Amino acid sequence: MKELMDRLTRSVGTITAPDARAQAEAAAYLDKLTKPPGSLGKLESLAIQLAGITGTIKPSFKKKAVVVMAGDHGVCEEGVSAFPSEVTPQMVMNFLNGGAAVNVLARQAGADVLCVDIGVAADLSHERLLSRKINKGTKNIAKGPAMTRAEAEQAIMTGAEVAAELYSHGTRLFVTGEMGIGNTTPSAAVFAVLSGKPPAEVVGRGTGVSDERLMHKIRVVEQAITVNRPMAEDPVDVLAKVGGYEIGGLAGLILGAAAKGCPVVIDGFISSAAALIAAAICPESRSYMIASHHSKERGHALLLQALELSPMLHMDMRLGEGTGGVLCLHMIEAACRIMSEMATFESAGISGGEI
Amino acid sequence: MKELMDRLTRSVGTITAPDARAQAEAAAYLDKLTKPPGSLGKLESLAIQLAGITGTIKPSFKKKAVVVMAGDHGVCEEGVSAFPSEVTPQMVMNFLNGGAAVNVLARQAGADVLCVDIGVAADLSHERLLSRKINKGTKNIAKGPAMTRAEAEQAIMTGAEVAAELYSHGTRLFVTGEMGIGNTTPSAAVFAVLSGKPPAEVVGRGTGVSDERLMHKIRVVEQAITVNRPMAEDPVDVLAKVGGYEIGGLAGLILGAAAKGCPVVIDGFISSAAALIAAAICPESRSYMIASHHSKERGHALLLQALELSPMLHMDMRLGEGTGGVLCLHMIEAACRIMSEMATFESAGISGGEI
Repeated sequence: MKELMDRLTRSVGTITAPDARAQAEAAAYLDKLTKPPGSLGKLESLAIQLAGITGTIKPSFKKKAVVVMAGDHGVCEEGVSAFPSEVTPQMVMNFLNGGAAVNVLARQAGADVLCVDIGVAADLSHERLLSRKINKGTKNIAKGPAMTRAEAEQAIMTGAEVAAELYSHGTRLFVTGEMGIGNTTPSAAVFAVLSGKPPAEVVGRGTGVSDERLMHKIRVVEQAITVNRPMAEDPVDVLAKVGGYEIGGLAGLILGAAAKGCPVVIDGFISSAAALIAAAICPESRSYMIASHHSKERGHALLLQALELSPMLHMDMRLGEGTGGVLCLHMIEAACRIMSEMATFESAGISGGEI
Repeated sequence: MKELMDRLTRSVGTITAPDARAQAEAAAYLDKLTKPPGSLGKLESLAIQLAGITGTIKPSFKKKAVVVMAGDHGVCEEGVSAFPSEVTPQMVMNFLNGGAAVNVLARQAGADVLCVDIGVAADLSHERLLSRKINKGTKNIAKGPAMTRAEAEQAIMTGAEVAAELYSHGTRLFVTGEMGIGNTTPSAAVFAVLSGKPPAEVVGRGTGVSDERLMHKIRVVEQAITVNRPMAEDPVDVLAKVGGYEIGGLAGLILGAAAKGCPVVIDGFISSAAALIAAAICPESRSYMIASHHSKERGHALLLQALELSPMLHMDMRLGEGTGGVLCLHMIEAACRIMSEMATFESAGISGGEI
């Protein structure tokens, strides 16, 4: 862990605490705006958080990107998903051609979509695809470790480096996204181990499996934990034994974004499992995370609680890709505009309240 | 009631049931898009609802408007609000000058802001203000009726006519907004009467009153109901006895939008009380309502339940003005873009799932 942190620091820099002075200044300014104190709720806490992250009370994010990390999962051979693994590379091509839900919603929000092949079990090549393949899919976690420890570290480093690369090209706001048929299974396993919760509480239906297959999926996660004995106090060990390449990549992306002083929007269940790994590696990274939506995947509410994050959108979505995250960009834009454009009681000549 | 419905029909037309064929077509098309069936949650139900309202599965709403109805409340003399009544006209000027939260958020969403003086207790004039003043504020509901029955009908007709006027200038999507210091008190009274729930369950803190003042506010609502004896089966009587001009105006706006075949986004607690009146007058109007956010005002969750509406945003907001409604426009835009821009399994050459 110490060695990984050193590598991360050398590569992307250190993660520092947010600017408390800017946060206090933002909070004081919010109370001068023409509205009852606190009445804009989470838009206000978001504005304060963004001030802390950026060091300015009136931030704006011109260049935003959702990073879709794609990987495959050996555990699919246990029959845990409603879709076959071949859908992962097919969906990657769909992202590259702009036809997936995340492309549509990212265009609406003015965000770039960057698709990264970090572990797809097929040969892929496309001018807009970032090829960072570590291996062709993980091994079956029901029978042994998903990957080696070196690969787990490489996945995290890859994500952090992608964040740094995007940052160097101007991106200042990140959204986590992913594609990987079967990836709610390793995400649930990671969450169960890091939180100590029983698999039956955290395993959900993913893309929509039947009751019978859900019971089977719970047993597969239980078996993966029994077989691999991941060490809860070592998040890299957990990632290596029961995780996935894209989960590690997203954990790294979060750490990289935080190291560059940029907010990072956490999408759904898989992204939140990655965020839990990032928080276990560096607790300060939590200050840079913004929860987007409350997904329909069972266990996501518990996972957000573990991260101490409160989502803004309740859309009953369970698609992944970063779709909930990019929808949340409108709320971030709203928080920024409130700080930049609203009149103050003084400028508008309005009487204050009793408070 | 029959006579009011006749007047409404003559003025703005009838409210018809949504197009079931377009709804079915939208549902079938959603299952062809490159995502697991139902995985976009409320965006999908919204797309189906919009298809039913507009008769097309790929609608788009170029001209959108939030209508901010402003009125004052005689009950303020009971000390139910943290702000003085003079703030109502001051905030109206703030809306007209573009400095309020609703202006900022409407600009972001590409929506017009129309401010209507339907009952402000001050002389107001501004080139962008729509003057439809029925009276200079309601009377104190703790002592007698808020307004006459004729005024209540006029408020509803005014709102419906504003919807028709905007429609004639191209508006196809409406958002309810309001301003009226003290208006959570009559809204809670309207809700309590129409739902039969005790005031203690539905009265909240409004702009943020203290515990002590909250208890007082509950007693004021109880007294208003005891003194006026509004008839729960007659929504116009309820509006006249314990309501407000802007509440009636918004009920009319909703009915007018529905009569013109346009969706109408319901903002927070006050707007939802108006929606309850609209639904009591014409149950079919509910098909045209879109719930936006779950406000922090106590009683709003119950009120949304009574309307059988499920909000998309959980922002802990309690500002009114239409702020939660305009934020929700991004979700409506997202639903429209999903229908227009996403690839199908066939067009993208992607394998289907087991379902």
